[in-house]
Amino acid sequence: MPRYKITVEYDGSPFFGWQAQENLPTVQGFLQQAIFKATGHEPEVFGAGRTDTGVHAVAQVAHFDSDKNWDPYRMASAINAHLAAAKVPISVLEASIAPDDFHARFSAKYRSYKYVVINRRSPLVLWKSRAYLYKYSLDVAAMQRATGVFIGRRDFSSFRASECQSASAIKTIDDFTITQTGEQIVFQVKAKSFLHHQVRNMVGSLVEVGRGKIDGFTLQKILDAKDRRKAGPTAPACGLYLFQVDY
Amino acid sequence: MPRYKITVEYDGSPFFGWQAQENLPTVQGFLQQAIFKATGHEPEVFGAGRTDTGVHAVAQVAHFDSDKNWDPYRMASAINAHLAAAKVPISVLEASIAPDDFHARFSAKYRSYKYVVINRRSPLVLWKSRAYLYKYSLDVAAMQRATGVFIGRRDFSSFRASECQSASAIKTIDDFTITQTGEQIVFQVKAKSFLHHQVRNMVGSLVEVGRGKIDGFTLQKILDAKDRRKAGPTAPACGLYLFQVDY
Repeated sequence: MPRYKITVEYDGSPFFGWQAQENLPTVQGFLQQAIFKATGHEPEVFGAGRTDTGVHAVAQVAHFDSDKNWDPYRMASAINAHLAAAKVPISVLEASIAPDDFHARFSAKYRSYKYVVINRRSPLVLWKSRAYLYKYSLDVAAMQRATGVFIGRRDFSSFRASECQSASAIKTIDDFTITQTGEQIVFQVKAKSFLHHQVRNMVGSLVEVGRGKIDGFTLQKILDAKDRRKAGPTAPACGLYLFQVDY
Repeated sequence: MPRYKITVEYDGSPFFGWQAQENLPTVQGFLQQAIFKATGHEPEVFGAGRTDTGVHAVAQVAHFDSDKNWDPYRMASAINAHLAAAKVPISVLEASIAPDDFHARFSAKYRSYKYVVINRRSPLVLWKSRAYLYKYSLDVAAMQRATGVFIGRRDFSSFRASECQSASAIKTIDDFTITQTGEQIVFQVKAKSFLHHQVRNMVGSLVEVGRGKIDGFTLQKILDAKDRRKAGPTAPACGLYLFQVDY
């Protein structure tokens, strides 16, 4: 029974996130349904990152087992045909046969997310539902310096969602960069794993730094407080993309 | 009576192009209607480029006269409010007061377009309706070399649409570059003005070069033939963006 590893792109806007939920449109749910229609058997599809409602993926990685021993390209094409028939914005970019002990979630060494802010006053058109429109001017250099607060092994209690189920709030951020191209500001962050809402909460507080509401020293104190109530707001889901998973 | 210069972004997908047509959704039509709702007077809005059905703009430039002597930012906000109410993907990015002899179309020194190809086999999601999905592999270096055929002052009869109304087919291409970032190939071309479908026809033939169907020498002969029937297909509208107008 071969194990298929697939790389998947999706627009998160119409979905209640990755994880299958009864009677709700989810990415995992539509993938499982498309595989069922292609193969006659509905497997569980395990994803590297359980993205939230409205969060996008440039390259989510997932795996599933199938009794069909197909060429991986044929498998991807068959799934894509059924996704297209269901008219859902999900596309299988690549498929391969993985070793039996490969697990999309547990074998992942790093997950990388990017977060897109469009910094302008006029309404979004080409980036609508795909970025966070922020109307006040941002000091990008100040935000870049403040990313240093998050890098390394830290207790991220101040930046986890109240409903987060992780046993520990200690996570290691391996890289955190911010780049600006015109009105577009892209936050890029890499870690083995993240707490629930951690990226959006870190971005939300960095935006407070960029606007001059708090400085980097205050951000450090917020982290040290280990108290979610001290930190800034959660940045909206629509700006977030899972864009790379390393194994 | 002040003349307003506006810069406009739009997603061309739902429109029958820029130019107003009775009972059809067009960018010019919706802009004129929004200005009417904002000011009580419907002006003619002149655009720098009359983009076709499905063609997008990152920064179309237009002008109109109004009897309202408003702060340009107020004018832009009022137009945007009525565009949002009409639920159309058009956004006024900037507004300013222009000299009385400024004309968005006739004063333009250069127009720059970009054309986005996504070169992969899987269906588009995040680029859907915003790029040309091309499934066969492309030799980008060969296409880059072939752009030289188009640069300079040439007779572009082989690359104009049959319905083109321009008096002369002679145009000057000032710059033509192709850049690749992963699966994304961006063609960027600059000229004082273009013939109808000229950019899409040049891209269509360059893609034939990239696929190895014709070489650069053949492309030169097609240009020299001054015969539309010799050239490649017209690349789809959805990949094309008006992205800069210089005055």
